[in-house]
Amino acid sequence: MPTQSEMKAVMQKYLDAFNAEDADAVIALYADNATIEDPVGSPTLQGKEAIGAFYRQVIPMGSKLKLVTPIRGSHSNSAAMAFVVESVMDGNPININVIDVMTFDESGKITSMRAYWGKEDYNIL
Amino acid sequence: MPTQSEMKAVMQKYLDAFNAEDADAVIALYADNATIEDPVGSPTLQGKEAIGAFYRQVIPMGSKLKLVTPIRGSHSNSAAMAFVVESVMDGNPININVIDVMTFDESGKITSMRAYWGKEDYNIL
Repeated sequence: MPTQSEMKAVMQKYLDAFNAEDADAVIALYADNATIEDPVGSPTLQGKEAIGAFYRQVIPMGSKLKLVTPIRGSHSNSAAMAFVVESVMDGNPININVIDVMTFDESGKITSMRAYWGKEDYNIL
Repeated sequence: MPTQSEMKAVMQKYLDAFNAEDADAVIALYADNATIEDPVGSPTLQGKEAIGAFYRQVIPMGSKLKLVTPIRGSHSNSAAMAFVVESVMDGNPININVIDVMTFDESGKITSMRAYWGKEDYNIL
């Protein structure tokens, strides 16, 4: 099991790579057979190819992820973080309140990501 | 499925009842066969009796839960919230960074609660 610090460091790298619009670096944080469910309640994507396609679509939109409170660990191989997505929709600045929960394998790769946000978590600024 | 607003209202009631040290009101928010895993990685407690015993032990300690960013919904029957537990340990004020993920049944009762916090999420003030 990765340490709490290792999991949190991977989540910070995820935010930094996303914000640098470096899709390759984000995708490299995932294990080969990982899953993502973003938002929770939508179909689960599995494997590097599906995950790669997801981030190569999302990241070029230029949204930025701003951590709003320290990343939380657990007593297992999972951790969670609350952040705000700053983006633009139809020419208007918006933000979306999100909490991501991730699990990790022995080597610290992300094995699952589940993103909690709903239609009511959008704010048009 | 409960609406996003209904789930968020239950989570706000959870915080308010916890902070009012009203264990009965907290326990009443749970479905009969609900589970809690607090922290994630510890044994799961199931059913009203186990959940009741948990809150009747924890709530009289007087800790207060402070929401630090708006509660997040999802596209399913689950929602998540980031908060800080303000407490006292060995006479020293401490806080603990926590994210709770909850699921809900049709009637808006909590069916599961998982609390993400680890030993490194304690801060001695």
